[in-house]
Amino acid sequence: MKKLSLGLLALAFAGSALAQTYSVEDAIKWRQAAYQVLSWNMARLDQNVKSAQFNKEDAIKAASTIAAIANSGMGQLYFAGSDQSDKIKTNVRPEMFTNGEAAGKAAMAFSAEANALAEVAQAGDAAAIQAQLGKVGGTCKGCHSDFRKK
Amino acid sequence: MKKLSLGLLALAFAGSALAQTYSVEDAIKWRQAAYQVLSWNMARLDQNVKSAQFNKEDAIKAASTIAAIANSGMGQLYFAGSDQSDKIKTNVRPEMFTNGEAAGKAAMAFSAEANALAEVAQAGDAAAIQAQLGKVGGTCKGCHSDFRKK
Repeated sequence: MKKLSLGLLALAFAGSALAQTYSVEDAIKWRQAAYQVLSWNMARLDQNVKSAQFNKEDAIKAASTIAAIANSGMGQLYFAGSDQSDKIKTNVRPEMFTNGEAAGKAAMAFSAEANALAEVAQAGDAAAIQAQLGKVGGTCKGCHSDFRKK
Repeated sequence: MKKLSLGLLALAFAGSALAQTYSVEDAIKWRQAAYQVLSWNMARLDQNVKSAQFNKEDAIKAASTIAAIANSGMGQLYFAGSDQSDKIKTNVRPEMFTNGEAAGKAAMAFSAEANALAEVAQAGDAAAIQAQLGKVGGTCKGCHSDFRKK
């Protein structure tokens, strides 16, 4: 189990085995963009499940988009040296880069809840989606408290 | 066929049937973020297929993320009145809002090529992925030339 976890961590955060190289500014811009896409889809889903006109198809689209971002491999945008830039602001804390094990666990917690959300959405029960969306939000907050500047 | 196309157009761009409302600034910010996520994944895939160390798993992740954005229902972020804002810059042209049929066709062309890309990526042939990525890029350029300010 420990071995598996470390393997997943490596998958989530290793950039060195990849062919791609990005500028620090692109990496910061792109990871912030991914979080904005999450914001849209979480707001979208939250409004939808609380509405009297719950729309199942839209809920599935929102949940699928959240899961897709969670599965996209954003770890590759957190390569060494991308913790700061003098051209673009980032709120990431250095711990994201120095504590890879905790960062990997946070990423895996988010992915697990996001994938569960995509599954729950398929059933189209607004209350169940709302409950699972809360769990996804909990993993966002957990990561923010550890890895985002106050 | 015409009926089907109009149905898809409506699905892609209708916002009025949805429960959600967003501020103009959020809508502009979120749609720009979605395009940035596309930029990341297209750059990622382009570098990967041209590399001597082609990584199939990473290609699948990139292609799946592109398809997910294409299928996310971004049309809801282009609601009436979100063509401009005095708080946030947008390069969208008014034609995106006044020529819904052309906008819908552009969105559908992108979705079709993006979904084909996700399928092609599964087979793991770098040259085939590169060719399909070119087709996706063509639909991006087509939309830019019609709907983005020069």
